[in-house]
Amino acid sequence: MPSSPSLPAWFLGPRAENADLLEKLILEALRDHVFWRRNFHPEDGFTIRETDKRSEGYERAVAKMTQELMGLLAELKQGVPFFSGRYKGHMSFEQTLASQIGYFAAMLYNPNNVALEGSPVTTRLELEAAAGLQQMIGYDVATSWGHLTSGGTVANFEALWIARNIAYLPLAAAGAAQELGVKLDVTLPDGSRAPLHELPLWKLVNITNGAALDLWHALFETAPRADVQKALSEHSLATVGYQDYARRLSKAYGDALPAGVVLVAATAHYSWEKIVRALGIGSNQLIYVPVDTHFRMDPAALWRQVSAFSARKTPVMACISVCGTTEESAVDRLDAVLDVRARAERELGVTFHVHSDACYGGYAASVLWKGDGSRRSAAEVRTSLLGLDWPGEDWVRGVEALGRADSVTIDPHKLGYIPYPAGAFLLKDRRARELVSTDPPYLSQVREGEATEERFLGRYIFEGSKPGAAAASVWLSHKVLPLDERGYGHLVERTVLGARRLHGALGAASMGEFRAVMLPEPDINIVCWVMHHPRLRTLAAVNGLNEGIYQRMSLSRAGAQPEYIITRTRFQTPMYDGAVDPILEALGVCSAAEWKAAGADGLVVLRSTVMDPFLVSPPPAPDHVTGFIGALRRAADAALASGTP
Amino acid sequence: MPSSPSLPAWFLGPRAENADLLEKLILEALRDHVFWRRNFHPEDGFTIRETDKRSEGYERAVAKMTQELMGLLAELKQGVPFFSGRYKGHMSFEQTLASQIGYFAAMLYNPNNVALEGSPVTTRLELEAAAGLQQMIGYDVATSWGHLTSGGTVANFEALWIARNIAYLPLAAAGAAQELGVKLDVTLPDGSRAPLHELPLWKLVNITNGAALDLWHALFETAPRADVQKALSEHSLATVGYQDYARRLSKAYGDALPAGVVLVAATAHYSWEKIVRALGIGSNQLIYVPVDTHFRMDPAALWRQVSAFSARKTPVMACISVCGTTEESAVDRLDAVLDVRARAERELGVTFHVHSDACYGGYAASVLWKGDGSRRSAAEVRTSLLGLDWPGEDWVRGVEALGRADSVTIDPHKLGYIPYPAGAFLLKDRRARELVSTDPPYLSQVREGEATEERFLGRYIFEGSKPGAAAASVWLSHKVLPLDERGYGHLVERTVLGARRLHGALGAASMGEFRAVMLPEPDINIVCWVMHHPRLRTLAAVNGLNEGIYQRMSLSRAGAQPEYIITRTRFQTPMYDGAVDPILEALGVCSAAEWKAAGADGLVVLRSTVMDPFLVSPPPAPDHVTGFIGALRRAADAALASGTP
Repeated sequence: MPSSPSLPAWFLGPRAENADLLEKLILEALRDHVFWRRNFHPEDGFTIRETDKRSEGYERAVAKMTQELMGLLAELKQGVPFFSGRYKGHMSFEQTLASQIGYFAAMLYNPNNVALEGSPVTTRLELEAAAGLQQMIGYDVATSWGHLTSGGTVANFEALWIARNIAYLPLAAAGAAQELGVKLDVTLPDGSRAPLHELPLWKLVNITNGAALDLWHALFETAPRADVQKALSEHSLATVGYQDYARRLSKAYGDALPAGVVLVAATAHYSWEKIVRALGIGSNQLIYVPVDTHFRMDPAALWRQVSAFSARKTPVMACISVCGTTEESAVDRLDAVLDVRARAERELGVTFHVHSDACYGGYAASVLWKGDGSRRSAAEVRTSLLGLDWPGEDWVRGVEALGRADSVTIDPHKLGYIPYPAGAFLLKDRRARELVSTDPPYLSQVREGEATEERFLGRYIFEGSKPGAAAASVWLSHKVLPLDERGYGHLVERTVLGARRLHGALGAASMGEFRAVMLPEPDINIVCWVMHHPRLRTLAAVNGLNEGIYQRMSLSRAGAQPEYIITRTRFQTPMYDGAVDPILEALGVCSAAEWKAAGADGLVVLRSTVMDPFLVSPPPAPDHVTGFIGALRRAADAALASGTP
Repeated sequence: MPSSPSLPAWFLGPRAENADLLEKLILEALRDHVFWRRNFHPEDGFTIRETDKRSEGYERAVAKMTQELMGLLAELKQGVPFFSGRYKGHMSFEQTLASQIGYFAAMLYNPNNVALEGSPVTTRLELEAAAGLQQMIGYDVATSWGHLTSGGTVANFEALWIARNIAYLPLAAAGAAQELGVKLDVTLPDGSRAPLHELPLWKLVNITNGAALDLWHALFETAPRADVQKALSEHSLATVGYQDYARRLSKAYGDALPAGVVLVAATAHYSWEKIVRALGIGSNQLIYVPVDTHFRMDPAALWRQVSAFSARKTPVMACISVCGTTEESAVDRLDAVLDVRARAERELGVTFHVHSDACYGGYAASVLWKGDGSRRSAAEVRTSLLGLDWPGEDWVRGVEALGRADSVTIDPHKLGYIPYPAGAFLLKDRRARELVSTDPPYLSQVREGEATEERFLGRYIFEGSKPGAAAASVWLSHKVLPLDERGYGHLVERTVLGARRLHGALGAASMGEFRAVMLPEPDINIVCWVMHHPRLRTLAAVNGLNEGIYQRMSLSRAGAQPEYIITRTRFQTPMYDGAVDPILEALGVCSAAEWKAAGADGLVVLRSTVMDPFLVSPPPAPDHVTGFIGALRRAADAALASGTP
């Protein structure tokens, strides 16, 4: 595919080819800030005087700082060359120039986006940057909401925190309505209406998000705001806490409601386990939904689980689908997941919050937009990729379904090429953010209808003080690289092309007796494979070879200087049961049963994230596919020869 | 007090007096990075070529980026002049030059401190920076632990998350021991030993942190590691979740344990409410401990509450003391809080985790250290402050007691003068971090005794991907400004002196009929007062005047250009009951009962955080005390005249 003529201007470059440009813009930002200070009440005179700067003590202090900085700079050079085509490891590449300059420029002002008072500019930039993401995934900006977080863990945490609050909202509303002596109807998942006070516990925990939020608003119509607020609070899980809440339910409904579960794609990030533990849900309630051999959540398995939980009257609090798994970049067919929910609502009267963890893959949605705001079809994308068979129609349906998920998380600091820290939490129905709001003492009383999120973001988010610089960074990068085929879409396409080229080359490579057993072509741009050699007869031996290759092709050993850098993961039972079968078969060293017996040792899988848009650049740009395969072969030889990982 | 000759070199300065220095060091860092790239495998050739940079498309892309940057720079100038002596609002000032340069230098490398693989250098810097803080508060670096977070909310969240896991650890151990068929003894709070399997529920939830962790280690001696791990996990709250856990306890012990409570100083940050809600503890279980008229937790009130909960057999999960309240910079007498716990252990057999939220005030501990690593006495500090009556002996005892708190949180991005984001979580007994550990699939099996936190921080912390740049920023700043009287201690002292000067001047100021009703002299450097005028006869009228002053002296209105910038808070019932009485008395417009009736409207209090170390600089530096009082008078006149806030 032809490179956009803008691409060479988007990054500093593997050889810092754009050093002059970056230096010029950094200096511009710095001097602009300096003269802002000089122009602020110039009548105030000078606090630090030229004579102060000529004292011996000042000189000593400058010498100290300079010396320590030199030390730091020397140390930093032991860092990871993410910028180089030789780095093919984790989801790290260099950042867009715009994001680096935007971060630096705003950092000089150090705004705090917790409240408008400390960030009159960057709070707005944050909401604009999030709105861009909302639009990209197909949310209606007017009715949805979004903000930035320190990263995907906090964003996913917020998603489940809100999901839990919505799940239990009808229960709180029923309690509040009784206390206030008001009667209300509520919409059931099958579309029928029923009186709230007649619903049994099981029906109350199976109200759709939309119906729950409608109910909530209807309740506020029945009595003074403060009274409703108080009554709701007294019946909400957030106030009462799990221990008393469970006792109350059991007393009020004569029903010890089983603990609510969270269904999650088996490929989900390990942080989900942290999250359910911290929220008090418990990791026993984190239920893995099997994935298919492309590592996508299996809708048939999801249906079986939902049916089984329904039969046992166990509430499903949420289902976490993944768009771009961190290990394989697999993209769930989210439309099929949503179909399962629709069927459950229809046939079982059961519903749940659907969240898409698109922390890694979210930006891939940008390939489906043209510059004029209209949609691109799969065929159009394939044409621009010179007839590559990506994306399939089902990929497009799955990604377009993001617009129907109740919440989505996307990390600009992953496929957005933004410096850390930058995650994002997006919420389809903005009303739900009130369910987690907390007022600080310095916020004046909130009047209804007031755009409080502009004044005090901290009210609706988990974190408090947070860098406005991150908002400026994302904002400026989105301005320079639009979230469509001209900008981020172009970047993503080139990395998909690069990943496919690497995948094809590895599968076809002649490496003596070594053979790369390839996992399927990725949904985005992470290439996974297992190296094999006819001499190896057991899973442990294959793992040993691959671990040995990894050790030789990573910075995991101090002082290592690998030619190319990759990473590895470990497929474990039970999460990868079934999905791993074709790979085990191709390896032919162990049965599925033996793999299960291996437990946490699992299968070591080598892994290359192709975030490098230059990998497919034609000569005279370096050929880092051929170079990589040669290095892999040498590492494999060495690992096999040493016999130990 | 004489200024350190280094002070003028520590900041860019209110007039950007050190612009040349900052520019020089930023350029040094940038070019150093550029040439690192050039020197990495120079044989790879160039990806972006000079001809690419001369294409029309490239020029357009550069023009676009430059134009958007210019737009951003113009917008940023509507930001807050934190650097100026005219800013006396929130806890924001400019950042140390070292922290700005350290952040920028490392940001170019964009390391990810979640794992050593992505941050071979900055993970170490993070642990070193945290170790500096551990040492400063008096922890033994060898047995304690610490790391950086995105901010105070996440750090405090981790503290309570860990506290809960320790609180329920003996229960899990009892269940696991039974399952494994082993018998163990455990130390009770009164120092006696008892067989674990004989303990009733109430005693199991009242084991000290140290005894619980000893028990945990003893359990691992009795059976293979994996078996113990499995048995413990099956009996832990984190796995089981609250709902099932409560049921199990009730079944196993015939005892429906009341929900555990969290005691918190009434002045605690509003984020504690978010935290207990999210953790599933519930805000009903967040119990406010009254504060005295200096806004410090009242130990007698704490003892009464602990006794009352003990009598009702309600477990106290944790007690949150504050070092530097965000509203008043009040420093709890933590030694007295710890005395209450010791007495509870002795007399009631009851114990709890003691956490100090030192997010704001933690750095003040640096005044108690000399450059040679020995302690400074209160008298020595007072001498360096030219006989100021700060700190008192009790202040010193309270701050030195941080070393005995089970956990402490400190925000470098507050009194550490570091750019956002930088919080820190410190844990007295490093063993406890295992209680929240989660293994990602790409981490190899952990061998006992291995220094895993160096390889994979993400295992022990709540967040995942996180900026190594923040670690470099804190690290470099600590190198240049040591955490003792020569560096941060000097800064803090100057701000205390400045705050006291401002406090005195405001109290003595002649402002016509206006009178500043001063809150007590602060424990650190936040000055609070209420403006009064004889014409005002009600609390609402006084609030109206102060809100009007705030509106005129803040950026809360678009386009406002106040002469000086302050902020305000709102003291509310029941948190400030009692503590507010002397102020109400001095105002003479309402009784304590009337104040209680005002509810959430409370009392509006004007507030100035003095983080400016230059406020006490002698002429010809500007006199921002006198200037401020004049501006306050004018704002008060205008607010009174307009009659509306």
